[in-house]
Parts: sequence; C-alpha cells; structure tokens
Amino acid sequence: MTLSGSLTSPAPRTVGNLLADYRPGWSLPQDYYRSEALYRAEMDQFFLTEWHFAGLASEIAKAGDYMLFDLCGESAIIVRDAEGRIHAHANVCRHRGSRVCLEPRGSARRFTCPYHAWTYNLDGSLFSARLMDGIDHDKLGLKPVAVEEFCGLVFVSFAADPTSFDQMRRDMGPLLRPFGLDRLKVAARKSYPVAANWKLLVENYNECYHCAPAHPEFARTHPTHMDGDRMKPLNKAMVERAQALNIPTDYVDTVGEHCPPGSVDHTFSRHSLYDDVVTGSDDGKPVAPLLGNLAGYDSGAADVYIGFFNPFLIYNDHVVTYRFIPDGIDRSVQEIIWLVRDDAVEGRDYDLQRLTWLWDVTTVADKTIIEKNQLGVLSRYYEPGPLAGMEFYTRRFLDLYTSRMARAADLPA
Amino acid sequence: MTLSGSLTSPAPRTVGNLLADYRPGWSLPQDYYRSEALYRAEMDQFFLTEWHFAGLASEIAKAGDYMLFDLCGESAIIVRDAEGRIHAHANVCRHRGSRVCLEPRGSARRFTCPYHAWTYNLDGSLFSARLMDGIDHDKLGLKPVAVEEFCGLVFVSFAADPTSFDQMRRDMGPLLRPFGLDRLKVAARKSYPVAANWKLLVENYNECYHCAPAHPEFARTHPTHMDGDRMKPLNKAMVERAQALNIPTDYVDTVGEHCPPGSVDHTFSRHSLYDDVVTGSDDGKPVAPLLGNLAGYDSGAADVYIGFFNPFLIYNDHVVTYRFIPDGIDRSVQEIIWLVRDDAVEGRDYDLQRLTWLWDVTTVADKTIIEKNQLGVLSRYYEPGPLAGMEFYTRRFLDLYTSRMARAADLPA
Amino acid sequence: MTLSGSLTSPAPRTVGNLLADYRPGWSLPQDYYRSEALYRAEMDQFFLTEWHFAGLASEIAKAGDYMLFDLCGESAIIVRDAEGRIHAHANVCRHRGSRVCLEPRGSARRFTCPYHAWTYNLDGSLFSARLMDGIDHDKLGLKPVAVEEFCGLVFVSFAADPTSFDQMRRDMGPLLRPFGLDRLKVAARKSYPVAANWKLLVENYNECYHCAPAHPEFARTHPTHMDGDRMKPLNKAMVERAQALNIPTDYVDTVGEHCPPGSVDHTFSRHSLYDDVVTGSDDGKPVAPLLGNLAGYDSGAADVYIGFFNPFLIYNDHVVTYRFIPDGIDRSVQEIIWLVRDDAVEGRDYDLQRLTWLWDVTTVADKTIIEKNQLGVLSRYYEPGPLAGMEFYTRRFLDLYTSRMARAADLPA
Repeated sequence: MTLSGSLTSPAPRTVGNLLADYRPGWSLPQDYYRSEALYRAEMDQFFLTEWHFAGLASEIAKAGDYMLFDLCGESAIIVRDAEGRIHAHANVCRHRGSRVCLEPRGSARRFTCPYHAWTYNLDGSLFSARLMDGIDHDKLGLKPVAVEEFCGLVFVSFAADPTSFDQMRRDMGPLLRPFGLDRLKVAARKSYPVAANWKLLVENYNECYHCAPAHPEFARTHPTHMDGDRMKPLNKAMVERAQALNIPTDYVDTVGEHCPPGSVDHTFSRHSLYDDVVTGSDDGKPVAPLLGNLAGYDSGAADVYIGFFNPFLIYNDHVVTYRFIPDGIDRSVQEIIWLVRDDAVEGRDYDLQRLTWLWDVTTVADKTIIEKNQLGVLSRYYEPGPLAGMEFYTRRFLDLYTSRMARAADLPA
Repeated sequence: MTLSGSLTSPAPRTVGNLLADYRPGWSLPQDYYRSEALYRAEMDQFFLTEWHFAGLASEIAKAGDYMLFDLCGESAIIVRDAEGRIHAHANVCRHRGSRVCLEPRGSARRFTCPYHAWTYNLDGSLFSARLMDGIDHDKLGLKPVAVEEFCGLVFVSFAADPTSFDQMRRDMGPLLRPFGLDRLKVAARKSYPVAANWKLLVENYNECYHCAPAHPEFARTHPTHMDGDRMKPLNKAMVERAQALNIPTDYVDTVGEHCPPGSVDHTFSRHSLYDDVVTGSDDGKPVAPLLGNLAGYDSGAADVYIGFFNPFLIYNDHVVTYRFIPDGIDRSVQEIIWLVRDDAVEGRDYDLQRLTWLWDVTTVADKTIIEKNQLGVLSRYYEPGPLAGMEFYTRRFLDLYTSRMARAADLPA
Repeated sequence: MTLSGSLTSPAPRTVGNLLADYRPGWSLPQDYYRSEALYRAEMDQFFLTEWHFAGLASEIAKAGDYMLFDLCGESAIIVRDAEGRIHAHANVCRHRGSRVCLEPRGSARRFTCPYHAWTYNLDGSLFSARLMDGIDHDKLGLKPVAVEEFCGLVFVSFAADPTSFDQMRRDMGPLLRPFGLDRLKVAARKSYPVAANWKLLVENYNECYHCAPAHPEFARTHPTHMDGDRMKPLNKAMVERAQALNIPTDYVDTVGEHCPPGSVDHTFSRHSLYDDVVTGSDDGKPVAPLLGNLAGYDSGAADVYIGFFNPFLIYNDHVVTYRFIPDGIDRSVQEIIWLVRDDAVEGRDYDLQRLTWLWDVTTVADKTIIEKNQLGVLSRYYEPGPLAGMEFYTRRFLDLYTSRMARAADLPA
C-alpha cells in the first residue's frame, strides 16, 4: 500500500503545483487544507477580493450613521454622508495605523482617531492632524474600500479592482422586487465557531447530498433531491402557484464561466418545499409576516446569490443569509443572519425561537459534520474521492476556487 | 564567551545536518527540540511508523465490536469481523474524507459515514455509496492500517511497511505466558498533559538516574541503581525466588542493532524490588490478585518492551503501561494504563486509589521535571551535556532515534 | 487604487530588505510587525542583548540570597556570593538542560538541579555531579550572564559582549546621588498583557503626542508639550526651584549616535510638572516620603534611561519604571514597578492605591490604544505615516532599532 498523504513536504510548492493536482469532480487534495502559505494566498487573492454582505442600508439610515464591517483582520467603516451617499473607508489611521473607529455602530459628524486625534470627514478626507506641519492633507485621507448598495443590501469588497454590479442589477433587480428586500430588518444573528478550514464550510453549504442522512429536521420540510425525478412534479405545482402570485420563477445562473469577466456572480432559482409546507420552519407554517408585496404562499423558496459568498435563502416570510468567515487555516465562523420585514414586531408578528429554529439546528449539526471532515482530510490516509451528482454546486465551487487561484499560481503554497 | 544556541537560523537545515551534530553519549542539540520541520519529519518517518499499544483484544471480544485508536491526528477503527479476525481501518471516508466512526467504542454491523452515508463492511470494503453511479467500489474501501494481536494485546502501526512480529512472538511468548496477559482488563487510565517535546518524556522514562533525587515514593520500594553493586545481591535473591515460582528471569534485549532488520524491537528483563516489597505500591504490599498462573510473589518485576514505544512494567499482581503522545512540538500527553486480571472486581479485589498511587505520584513529579527541562533546552545557553552511566537506556533511545531519522536526512529541519 | 500591504510575501526577504524600506520620520512598514523571522532576529540580535533592569541589589542583600530574572524564555539566577559579589548565571543545567533553580527568589548555599541533583556553587562552578566519572568539572559550571549593579539597581544582559557601564557611571552617578536610589524598595509591581508587538509598546511609551487626547488623568498634572512654547516658562521656574534644593537639572542625552560605541545608552533630563503639582498622583500631592537627600519638592520629575529599555521616571517621592516584555510577535507584557524609599512603611508613609493610581490608569488606557494600533498595522490598507515633531523620541527609537538591526541584515525576514 502507498500512503497518499505525507506529513512532510519534501520540496517547496507553489499554488500552481497544487492547482495541477486538482482533479475536477473529485474533492481537493490534502495540501489545500493544510498549507499556511496557500491560506494566505487564497485570502489575499480570492476570498477578501470577493464581495461580502455587510448589512442593510437601513442600518445607517441617516447622515453620519455608520457601521463597521470586519473580516479576516480587515475593518471597514461604512458610513452615510450628508448627501445620503454610502462610503466605505479602511478603518486604519493614516498617521500610525490605529483603528480610527472602535464602536461597531453609531453616528458621528467626523471620525477622530482615539490615539493622536487625527480627524477625518465622513467622506474619508483628512479634516485635521494636530500639531503637524508640512504634511499633504490630500494624500492622507482614509483609504477607500469598495462598497455597493443593491435592493437595500450593502456589500463590501477589499479588492483594488472589484467586479461590477451593473449586469447583476439589471438581471436581479426585477426578480427581487416582489420580496421588498429594501424594507427588511435584522431579526437575529448567530455565530457558530467551526474548527475547520473555511472551504469545508462552503463545500458543505453547497450540496444537499448530506441533507437526508444528516438533517432530518430540514429534510422533512424541504425536498433534498434537487435534480431528481421526485422534484419535478413538486416544482411544477409550485411554479403554477408562484405564477398565480406573481412570484418570479426564473432561472439565472450567472456564475463562473457563465458570468462575463468583470461582473459579480449572481444566481436566482426557486425551489419547491413539500406541499403542506409554506416556509422554513419546524412545522412548515409561517414564522413572520409576508415579505414585500407578496400576496400569499406558493410553498417555494428562492435561492439567490449576490457574489460568490453571499447566499440569500428567501422564504415568503423571511430571509436567511449565511456568512463564511475564515479565522486561520483551521478555524472558521459560520454566521447566520435572519431578516424579516422592517415593520414586523418581535413577540407580536414573529417569535425568535420559531424563526431561527430550523437553520440553527441544521447549522449545529453541520458544525459537527464539518469538524469531523476537517479531521479526516488532514489524515495521511486521506485522498480525494469522487463527488456525487448531487454535489454539483460543491464541484462548481471547487472549479471556481481553483480557477480564480490561478492568478496566484506563482505564490508559494 | 560564545553562546551555544541562537534564536535565529541563518540557513535552512536538513535533518541530515542535525544528525551530524549529534554526539553519542550527550544530550541532543537544541534544534531537535525546536524545529517544526523536524517534528513533522520525526512524526512521519519514525513515531507514527512504530507500533503502538492500542488496547486489549478482550475489549472487542465479539463480532462487530470496535474501538478507535487515535494518535497524532490519525484515527484507526479496530474491529473484529464475523470470523473473529481483527482488522484496523483508517477512519477516513473515501468520499470526501470525513471521519466514518465517531464513537470511541461500540458494536456495529457496518460503518456508515455520518456525512453522506457511505457504508463500509466490517472488513473495510465499500458496501454502498448512495446515489452514485460509475464509481469503482473495489478501489473505495477504507484503507487498511497495520494491526497485530499478541498475548491479548493489540498494537497498531501507521507504517506502510511495518516491522514483523514473528521473531518477537517466538522470543517473548514463552516468557510472558505465566503472566496471563490475555486475561487482563483495563482497571484505570490517566492522562497527564506535559508542556514539553515528546522526546523529553521518553528520555525521562528511560533512565532512573533521576529516581533518587526526584522520586522518593518510588525509591523507597524500587532499587534505583540498576547496574550498581548494590543491585547484585538483591537480584541474586530475587532470581532464586522467581525460579522457585517458575517465573522467567531471562534477559532479552532485541533492540536497535541487536534487532534483525524488519523485526519489531522487544526486551524482557526482571529486576528486584526491595526485600520486603512485593509490588509497586505505597507500602510494598499487594494491590490486586496475582496475575495468570503465578503462585506467589518473588519481590521482582518484569520490564518488557513490545516495540520501541510500549513499555509494560509487569508486577506480579498488575501491569502498568505508558503511552507517549506528541501533541505538537512543545506539548505532549503522558498516558498511563493500569491492567489487572479480568476477573478481579474493583472494591473487592483491588482498590483503584492503592493500585494507581505509585505511578500517579511519580508521573505528577515527572511532569514538573520535564516541563522545566523543556524550558532549559530552549535557552540560548543550553548545550548538550554528558550522560551518566545510569542513563544508558536514554542514550540508547537517542542513538536509535537518530539512526532511524537517517532515512529522513534529506528533509528540511 | 494600489493596495500598500499584501497578505502574501511572494519572495523570501532578508532583514536587509526590510531596512531598505524604512523611511526615517515615518512609522514602520508592515512587515516589521508580522514577520516571525524578523521577530526572532530582533530578539536575538537586539532586544535580548540590551541591558534590562532586573531588580534592586537590596533584594539580595546577604550571601546566598538570589532572585531569578526571566525574559523571553531566558532565565538568569542573580545571586550574591560569600564575598558579597553579585553574579548572574544561566539557569540551565549543564547536564541535560533543566532549569536549576525553580523558586523566583530565596537563599541557598548551593544550587542543586531538581532533575539529577547536579550541584553548583554560588559562583556558578560545578560542585558535584552524582555518579559521573570522567567529566571535566571546570568546563561544566553554569554559564555566566552579564550583570551590573549601579546605584543599587541591578541590570542583566544576555549579550555575549554587552556594552560597558563605565561612562554611564561617570555621567549619571553624580546626577542620581540626591535621589538615593540605593535605598529603595519595591512597593508594587503590576503586569498588563497587551495583544500587540513589543515595538508598538515602546513607540507608545516614547511620545506624548497622544497624552492630551488619550490620557486626561496624566495631562491634568503633567504638561504634555515637551518642546513647546508653553513648557518654557514652566521649566524655567522649575529649574530655579530645583537649584534651590540642589536637585540636578542637567541634560544628558547619550543615546544612539551620541553614545560612544561600546557604551550603554543613558539619558537624564528634568521636566516641570504643573505649578501646583509636586508629584505624579491623582491630585498632584505627595504619595510617599521624599527620596534620598531631597529637602523638598521642585514640581519637577527626572526622566532617566539606563540602557535603551529601562526608563526611570523619578519623582521626588517615588520612582516608576517600565519593563517591555515581548511574548511572541503579537503579544507583550507591560510591567510597571513602583519604588519608594526603603524605610517607608505601607499604610503609614504611603498608600498603594494612591501611589500606583496615575500610571495604572494611564497604562490601562494605553493597553487599549496599542491593541487597536496592532490591528491597524496588520491591515492591507496600512502604510507608514508621517511622525509629528512631538514623536521625536519614537522616531529616535525607530532609527536606533533599525540601525542596530543592520547587524542582522543577512538574516531572513
């Protein structure tokens, strides 16, 4: 027998070497989960340069309102200026690098660094640097971070040259209009630390091959055979109900090779729940008021991606969104945000326990699964295995991940 | 003055460079305790490829009974099949690498991976992969891990080509027969985390030069001058008593250069306790029923090694075995397992506190000693010092360790 | 926009490469705070080779009295021998490297290693090695560590060739005589863990540009504009009062390029407090009996450095000294020691709470500031910024740090 893995790396490898080892349709080779150099490269060249959902525009409704967006050691101040425009600034003082803004959210006329009191305007420009002569104010404003608002959702990218929202706005705007995403509020946020590499979280999220064995709570309300024969009649009936309610059932799949260069990835699809199930809940019954302009339930849910890392699962009465947060090569945080319409009142219109139950119990189960996956992929006996047809979206993630890492091929891994 | 150590390594080193620095009869140079690359190499090329005591065959007595054996990130499922044969399988699913078996012990007809429900037979072959077409079942069984049973003791090696038990069985079988090792049970297990490199634990275990200053509890029942003049009359009297009881007093020392290539190391020797002491206990009095076929006490104890890392200290009424468990370059776990005859009843035939007292108090003291040793060997003032004659077995460990690491000479250190 | 920082390092860098990136008058480039190799180099080539304040000679007043001095993994036994001489020995046994002395302070006739009982005389020479033949006792004494006493203060350096105290003694002895530093005792010690690179602590300590915005408690008793026009009249009045009391107001600045090669850096300057403030306290009123031979208060305080890392802030009634203790690249400990005259009695002559209040509250605030600075300098948006005139001593630290690291230019960074 030949051991597939080895705990020692006899020669320095590059990201390009690793990419050559990837076999499409199979899980990733071991080094993808244990190379610290690769981890740094993928953060720098891929993860942090993608768009990330940062919050709701309604969270910073008035001039001077701000919220921080922290990810993998980076921090952005997202702030609305006096003209109502949203900016994002790197939360790094141009003097000696201190965080300028310490509170996670608030309202300010200007931002004053707590260290030496350098002060910045809402648009990021330097307002004053105490007792300093001969410095060039124009070159010492807070550095800009890319930010976009779409349907009331705010996204941030730490790329110097991020992808454009233009085509996505045209494609997705009409499809999302009925759901009134610009009139949402955050009902709940939960964080689940997972002792695993971030890619294992994304691989897990993107397939439902594991739903039947691992998630009985989910499987009793959601059909888990996305492409199977058993889905067809369910989906056919759902489409009829949706059309009667003017709910879009288009299929948009503008990701990877289907996405024009320079445009942000985006998808829209609508899937049926079981017949007697109208939303993602314990008993299939509603958990919050209908979203936006919806007139009723079609026993369906929309799967939406805005950018590669931002899935929005849009039920008729609430939205669930996932955040994948790397915290070192072998630790991550899975965050879930539950959104409901902004005029819903907790206790009257929705119950937090009922609202969050399904995805909480599902994520707790996934935490264990993913951590056991992490242990296995680091074994010297691990070797990549074949993916099932139901793991199509996981395969696509791996394809896209490896294809985008090609830009880092010369970096050490 | 010239500093011997330096906190920076100006040039990349190989394991071979380190080996050239080793001076037999002296303690190891500093880099052996602080090179992360060396640590990975020694795990891969030496530690994990040696045989390790994993448990008793009686712990998996019936078909389908299994127990996990975890070591340094590897996990093996040790299971008895329907024909009574013992197998060990890598606990790594061939699909996407999850741990297949999560419970430390139990009984099963088959093993089903908790992630996507791939299912394996007790012999490791793939029984089913849900909803998968076109895969080669014959190539997707759990990978085999080397396993051996000897005298009811089960050993595992993560080597692709482990050493053979054949000669050891011939040499040691007759010597161990009187002790009835195949009729033992685990009376107690304790783990002692030690903030030190694993080699310092092994170095400590292998010499009794420190017993007189550091272990008064041990020294009052066990003579600590193994080769000294004071031992000779004690051992001579013990041999006479042992022979009268048909207890072997042979000397087997088949280790390192004395061990044929491809064979597992093994030793047997019998040492006298003090005259009025019959076993390793607080007061020298028995702590459990006599083992196997023994008819009495000879005030002796057998030192046995099966493989380099598995010492069995066989008193007439119980067995103590040590496990050395690396947990990163600067952390380890010292585990102790106490074994008594399988029909002994706790509370009636033995008292756990009395049984475990001696080696517990000794190991607690060693924990402190070893941790202070770790601090010192990392100092820039540390340089290898001369070993005493009483440190012969520690020297032999260092010789054998360096000789086996020669196979990794080209790896970075 | 071009990102200044990058989370990946495409090519191996040397310390020399980093030094080329340093721009005097600006904060340090990012790699200075995140290169593990640089951290090891700076510990080895700079930090540990400087002199460090280790305690008071009065703490080891009698023959055999000893105290340990631990820093960055090194440990020195500072001990007074029978002739009254102070020695420092590496706390590393010459046998197998154990710490020899475990208690932080005590009194001993000899030092016996707890592992194998090798025993050393107070002067470090080997007294006995149990059961060992054929070893060279003369070559197996504890290794010497550089130690100096000055004005009752004890300093240690882990350099093989430390700088000399000769000129410093001549320059500083007369200036410090009135303060009776040889008749002090330790009134309090506190440690503040700071999640930041050690250099950020030193940078923070060396400038008062941040005092007005960040330290209102300090700023209401201490003028914070060291070089400004507002200081001149205050200092002029203080000098008159000091001269009337025979308190030195000399200015000594023998640091870096002003310091002869081979001599320890040292500074002396005296600064005015506000008129109605006589010491560093909550209300500006005395907190302990007058030091040494002082006859009264001049509303001034002396800033003294003995070696680069040992600031002594000498008020008329107490001394505050800071220790900067690296604990890995991104963790440090800020220790503060408060000294009062040795015949002062707690509760009668001074109250610990009042004595320690000012620098405790200031250091707690600095801990937060420095940790937020650490977060920022690791951002991909960080780039060095211009230092203010008031940051002159921070700039000097950076200049001196980079100049001394030049000796390590060929090491990897």
